[in-house]
Amino acid sequence: MNVKTLATQRKTARRFKSDPVPREAVDYILETARQAPSGSNRQPWRFIVIDDPAVKTKVREAAEAGERGFYESLSPERATWYREKGLSWAKPHLTDAPTLLAVLGDTEAPNYVRSVWVAVGYMLLAAEERGLGAVTYTPSDPEKVREALGAPVNLSVETVMPLGYSADEKPKESRREMGELVHYDRLE
Amino acid sequence: MNVKTLATQRKTARRFKSDPVPREAVDYILETARQAPSGSNRQPWRFIVIDDPAVKTKVREAAEAGERGFYESLSPERATWYREKGLSWAKPHLTDAPTLLAVLGDTEAPNYVRSVWVAVGYMLLAAEERGLGAVTYTPSDPEKVREALGAPVNLSVETVMPLGYSADEKPKESRREMGELVHYDRLE
Repeated sequence: MNVKTLATQRKTARRFKSDPVPREAVDYILETARQAPSGSNRQPWRFIVIDDPAVKTKVREAAEAGERGFYESLSPERATWYREKGLSWAKPHLTDAPTLLAVLGDTEAPNYVRSVWVAVGYMLLAAEERGLGAVTYTPSDPEKVREALGAPVNLSVETVMPLGYSADEKPKESRREMGELVHYDRLE
Repeated sequence: MNVKTLATQRKTARRFKSDPVPREAVDYILETARQAPSGSNRQPWRFIVIDDPAVKTKVREAAEAGERGFYESLSPERATWYREKGLSWAKPHLTDAPTLLAVLGDTEAPNYVRSVWVAVGYMLLAAEERGLGAVTYTPSDPEKVREALGAPVNLSVETVMPLGYSADEKPKESRREMGELVHYDRLE
């Protein structure tokens, strides 16, 4: 299947079957990520593969503590948007997904956020190719999650990706048309 | 070809053949990018496809003005690193590549940098699949390049990607081993 087809059929998964993710598929995804380019070739990504239910619970509790603060801070308009999407501070997928892939960035590397997220893009397509669903959950308070993971202060939690076989029946969110996004030679 | 193979064989291109990039291939890359997920589904990416030599020259001049300042600011150690890699303030690929893909981010969208760079990851794999080389050049002074492109202040220039058939014979930069990058359940 080509890259465009993988990208087009991929949609976010926040609900998962209980079937475990084969270790070989996790390796495939991380081997793909490892090949991404990065600023000054610093390869500032570090990965934590989380299968242990106790660690998942700890991560979920830390994440939800941060989300409660975030949801309380929302304007009424944005709060409505999130509610209509069925989103809230609760992150059950952080314990329901069979595996979490935490992706951390080395904050001492130049352009580390950009580099890490190129690798995340690679991971999403590799997961789709293996029939796995995921969501790039970015904690509202990444420091709380970093502490829960026992990671040092020079690493930032960029995303915690719940990974598994999707049981999410929500359709893919719509996409803007090309004409809205693409300009030629100059912005008009 | 599978995603891991595309990611593995892909290497950065800073030298290009003069053959033009088929418009159909540019569309393929941007159609792929358009499918990426984004924070609150804001799709904060905007693309400028630059084929006009006059625009390329303007972008290059703006970029190099920013790079001169950056290279002057480097510590002796980092200056040596860049010199050994054959890198300098000069960015001839910004005029030598047949096409530039400028990727801009809507700074008003939440998490726009992360979202844009997932899309950039998609673009790199789509380009590789079409046999095209690229480098994710990130301007040291993106404001200068934004002005050269005539883009409004609420858009940030995330990357200007020279795109074309590679004539770059430099080998791929080495990658860290998996054991250096991957941990299980917790960082030790």
